[in-house]
Amino acid sequence: MIIQLVENIEPQELENIRNKVHEIDYEVTDVRTSSNHYLICIGKKEFDIRNIGNLNGVKDIHRVSDSYKLVSRKWKVDPTVIDLGDGVQIREGDFTLIAGPCAVENEHQIELIVDHLVKNNIKIIRGGVYKPRSSPYTFRGLGMEGLKMFYKVSKSRGIKIITEVMEVAQIEPMYEYIDIYQVGTRNSQNFNLLGELGKIDKPVLIKRGMSGSIDELLQSAEYIFSSGNEKLILCERGIRTFENAYRNTLDLNAVPILKEKSHLPVVVDPSHGIGLREHVETMALAAVMAGADGVIVEIHEKPEEALSDSQQTLNFDESYKLAEKLRKVFELRKNL
Amino acid sequence: MIIQLVENIEPQELENIRNKVHEIDYEVTDVRTSSNHYLICIGKKEFDIRNIGNLNGVKDIHRVSDSYKLVSRKWKVDPTVIDLGDGVQIREGDFTLIAGPCAVENEHQIELIVDHLVKNNIKIIRGGVYKPRSSPYTFRGLGMEGLKMFYKVSKSRGIKIITEVMEVAQIEPMYEYIDIYQVGTRNSQNFNLLGELGKIDKPVLIKRGMSGSIDELLQSAEYIFSSGNEKLILCERGIRTFENAYRNTLDLNAVPILKEKSHLPVVVDPSHGIGLREHVETMALAAVMAGADGVIVEIHEKPEEALSDSQQTLNFDESYKLAEKLRKVFELRKNL
Amino acid sequence: MIIQLVENIEPQELENIRNKVHEIDYEVTDVRTSSNHYLICIGKKEFDIRNIGNLNGVKDIHRVSDSYKLVSRKWKVDPTVIDLGDGVQIREGDFTLIAGPCAVENEHQIELIVDHLVKNNIKIIRGGVYKPRSSPYTFRGLGMEGLKMFYKVSKSRGIKIITEVMEVAQIEPMYEYIDIYQVGTRNSQNFNLLGELGKIDKPVLIKRGMSGSIDELLQSAEYIFSSGNEKLILCERGIRTFENAYRNTLDLNAVPILKEKSHLPVVVDPSHGIGLREHVETMALAAVMAGADGVIVEIHEKPEEALSDSQQTLNFDESYKLAEKLRKVFELRKNL
Amino acid sequence: MIIQLVENIEPQELENIRNKVHEIDYEVTDVRTSSNHYLICIGKKEFDIRNIGNLNGVKDIHRVSDSYKLVSRKWKVDPTVIDLGDGVQIREGDFTLIAGPCAVENEHQIELIVDHLVKNNIKIIRGGVYKPRSSPYTFRGLGMEGLKMFYKVSKSRGIKIITEVMEVAQIEPMYEYIDIYQVGTRNSQNFNLLGELGKIDKPVLIKRGMSGSIDELLQSAEYIFSSGNEKLILCERGIRTFENAYRNTLDLNAVPILKEKSHLPVVVDPSHGIGLREHVETMALAAVMAGADGVIVEIHEKPEEALSDSQQTLNFDESYKLAEKLRKVFELRKNL
Repeated sequence: MIIQLVENIEPQELENIRNKVHEIDYEVTDVRTSSNHYLICIGKKEFDIRNIGNLNGVKDIHRVSDSYKLVSRKWKVDPTVIDLGDGVQIREGDFTLIAGPCAVENEHQIELIVDHLVKNNIKIIRGGVYKPRSSPYTFRGLGMEGLKMFYKVSKSRGIKIITEVMEVAQIEPMYEYIDIYQVGTRNSQNFNLLGELGKIDKPVLIKRGMSGSIDELLQSAEYIFSSGNEKLILCERGIRTFENAYRNTLDLNAVPILKEKSHLPVVVDPSHGIGLREHVETMALAAVMAGADGVIVEIHEKPEEALSDSQQTLNFDESYKLAEKLRKVFELRKNL
Repeated sequence: MIIQLVENIEPQELENIRNKVHEIDYEVTDVRTSSNHYLICIGKKEFDIRNIGNLNGVKDIHRVSDSYKLVSRKWKVDPTVIDLGDGVQIREGDFTLIAGPCAVENEHQIELIVDHLVKNNIKIIRGGVYKPRSSPYTFRGLGMEGLKMFYKVSKSRGIKIITEVMEVAQIEPMYEYIDIYQVGTRNSQNFNLLGELGKIDKPVLIKRGMSGSIDELLQSAEYIFSSGNEKLILCERGIRTFENAYRNTLDLNAVPILKEKSHLPVVVDPSHGIGLREHVETMALAAVMAGADGVIVEIHEKPEEALSDSQQTLNFDESYKLAEKLRKVFELRKNL
Repeated sequence: MIIQLVENIEPQELENIRNKVHEIDYEVTDVRTSSNHYLICIGKKEFDIRNIGNLNGVKDIHRVSDSYKLVSRKWKVDPTVIDLGDGVQIREGDFTLIAGPCAVENEHQIELIVDHLVKNNIKIIRGGVYKPRSSPYTFRGLGMEGLKMFYKVSKSRGIKIITEVMEVAQIEPMYEYIDIYQVGTRNSQNFNLLGELGKIDKPVLIKRGMSGSIDELLQSAEYIFSSGNEKLILCERGIRTFENAYRNTLDLNAVPILKEKSHLPVVVDPSHGIGLREHVETMALAAVMAGADGVIVEIHEKPEEALSDSQQTLNFDESYKLAEKLRKVFELRKNL
Repeated sequence: MIIQLVENIEPQELENIRNKVHEIDYEVTDVRTSSNHYLICIGKKEFDIRNIGNLNGVKDIHRVSDSYKLVSRKWKVDPTVIDLGDGVQIREGDFTLIAGPCAVENEHQIELIVDHLVKNNIKIIRGGVYKPRSSPYTFRGLGMEGLKMFYKVSKSRGIKIITEVMEVAQIEPMYEYIDIYQVGTRNSQNFNLLGELGKIDKPVLIKRGMSGSIDELLQSAEYIFSSGNEKLILCERGIRTFENAYRNTLDLNAVPILKEKSHLPVVVDPSHGIGLREHVETMALAAVMAGADGVIVEIHEKPEEALSDSQQTLNFDESYKLAEKLRKVFELRKNL
């Protein structure tokens, strides 16, 4: 059960509500986000919800039987809108293309890509400065210096930035240089990182774990939400299966299911989802048709020279065509 | 290496070609399909392919490094067209909707569905009379009597039939009552069944194994092809993963990959692929966008009363809308 | 609910019992095995089981909530003993080693192996004459001629034979030359084959599907049992996972779970379970410790020359040592 | 290629070796652990290794083709011994039982368990004070206060402590209260945490990722090792599969394979590996037989009252019996 409290609730009212909930033997967690105040109540007893709903200080109340609560669409039917300012939004009913390199490599690379984005009316750039790599002996990103350069170039052209955060200590230094924090697939259940991202007022995109379930992804989102941050985006990026013909198996079933179960926007990453450059476009288009609110792809001026993920990265020509086609497919989907 | 021989090759020429191949220590398999004659040659030695290509009796010759040979697009670039007569085809560049009940239940049920298909210009009906069921204590289909009724009703309205064959002994009796044999996911590596279907001149649709790989699906197709039957259709129907939020995980990556690797048409089954009625349409549309040549869905006048798969079966209204939307999405895809 | 009927039940008694079951809206399946007569009753209504248990003609009655019924240990607590004659048994409380080649190749090969078995007091030989192979262009076994030779050599030395049956048409011809039919992993849900094996009075060993669940394996066993054959052996042979360091992932969890859930003996195949010759012994010993009633391994005089599975086949020296160690480990397990 | 340098190498010698390696276009990573100094050299060119091996300052040199280097048994054949002081070691050739509660709950609970351990000659206790939980609304452990109490009670009786560390910021505060850091399955690829643990001189036990491969586990170990800490223990704890009959699928194949590929000790966690109390003993014994150097199990005075994992936790009587049997099985294994 979720109880949303009125703004500036009186201490006496809050105390009263808590007491009523304890009477039915429910555990209460107090959740304050940047915009709301909730009580998450968990227990098993049957009771008449109106007895609590009628109390002073209660703004809204619902039973939510899912293991996740505040991110559930059973609680909040209206889709969450992620507003990045300057008219850039990620949201249901609209479609957002995010593009950029796997890794930030150097200023020239970023300038070329940003230029390409501006020309194609793409508003958000991706690019890693902290790269999770299986082997300790490979390129792990340019770090904060890279991020500052990335920011300087992108902001000067009005492009928003999403980049991966790998540990708690990076959250604070990265803060002023980014627009969206990305939690990667390997950190999808890094609960400490999730908890700390809940204390920040910038949006967070959470990738599904490499072999994580829908339920686990939503519970990871719940971690951030219940720590205070409501600005969340879910991302399907392919799961691990025993198919070797592609890097991952993009699970587009996840798109309508996540849209049904949660009010958060859903973005799909076809680059990692199939891992083969010649099929990224196809899977991106399929993702839109499956209901995705956005797509995030890897691009590079010369994919074959990229320091990482070159086999799944589009060149500018491919990126241009993709953007054109995505718009047409989204247009059709809206009017079906 | 595949050698296609000229029609009515002279015995002496064939002997001569075989000798040349044996000289380089390759194993030779003689494959005669209803329309062609091939030698499949497998070995490791390097050699100049022209030495064999120049021989009398050789119509075409190619190296094919895949584990499957005749179904590979490296061998045959032109897409295979499955012609069911009366202008009904399954093929690349066109789009086919196949619809029908999970199981054939009774004449009234079939009449209603056939009527719906005719009205919606759907030309092929699905429907099982032999049902593979995990438990021996559940409904296993009406068998041959059901098939005869199914045939009578469907043919009278000009509708083609696809239905599952479960064992060798069924092939012959079913022959005159069907248009396409379906090999189910559990029989995807039933090699004896595949081999016998190779001796038949009717098309066969092969479903991917429940946890089968792309490579295994193509090798299963190779079994049928190399036993003589070139009329094959591949079907993606969802794989088993540990996600419990849906029955199977529809793997749309498989669509562009199968189209790239093979010249055979590819059909997608979103009903089994997600297993949830309210999302079948979405996944069907995504499948078309991913490049499917056709979609096969379960429909029933009253899904909630269907003897099996009721939770993933569309009613007529949903089926009608799906057909409309599929046409629009296919139209867009062709013109992207 | 399972009702076991008395031998030679009166038609009137049977009729009476059926009527009582229909009164509570349960579906009834009549099961006659070579030794018993059962009614399997499936339904949802609550009722007092004594009302049926008290009827004339009822020998035993139990509720069994599992999806499988007759193979459940909730129905039959006493372990099933598979008696092959001449004092050879596969059963709980005893330990059986089965060894032999992947494929029967020629008489000399079999003579050498049989000689090795006799010297090491191994009573059952494995060896395929019908080989399921992913590719149609590889060796598929010697067929019936091979089986007759296999039989002649083995029987003359008192060795029992287990070999794979791949299709219904092979059951009858193989009958007089074998002691145990093996159903391979790819046919684990070939329900027609299972059904026909239920009509035979020789034991059947069923391998778990490549990605099949415990529940599915037990339901496959139920197919055979409910068709009339109670002489069943379950076999864990490794499941497919995304680990590439070994061929399959041997799932030893399955051993105590299958022993708990079913009264049938459980055999483990470590050769396929890990697929690496140098680790077959280790996994065989672990399997015994996990509670296996037997182990089935691949051996060959010269594994490196075997026509198939050479990388997972033991030579005679390794087989000798394995047999010695298995006995010691089993001895310890019995006395723990 | 790994180059181990002599202690206190002259700067000029080091420079000289680096230059030689750069000449063949290899990337060099300088690795200093608490006990050794290495150069990890990665590249593709063929060359005569003696040209570098002969240089002054080189103590040892080997090619290692694995993706992991310093943890590979190709580099170091001798098994790594983890010495916890007071005669307590985890190592190949010996066997270690680790037992304790899922979570540290209160002082009385710990006193009872420690007492049980002392009586049964078990030297290492497990117990979480930071608990990774899928849901943010469940008990997440007592934190540092709990750890201090845990330490006080355990140390007073001479028991060593292993406990999970979940984030970088916890490493330092936990340091003086523990003997082994545990990296949980969800943090198996938390590369920042791994890197920081490399800067510590206490042993680290790394659990395999929930669906992580053998290779990934070894590369995660390489992260810690290459950051400076050679005291590593590998732990198999079950992988995620689609089997629902148990919590995880314990992969005992991993034991002989990890022992073959790495010089690090291998511990198995049967409690999480099967997740069912009545089968933990069986799987623990099988793990020993598979070659495990140790086993880690969950115990509690009253498992049914444990705050977490109660369904897979042993009571003291079961734990006592397990310890007895493990010793017998290990004794047999040594003498096989």
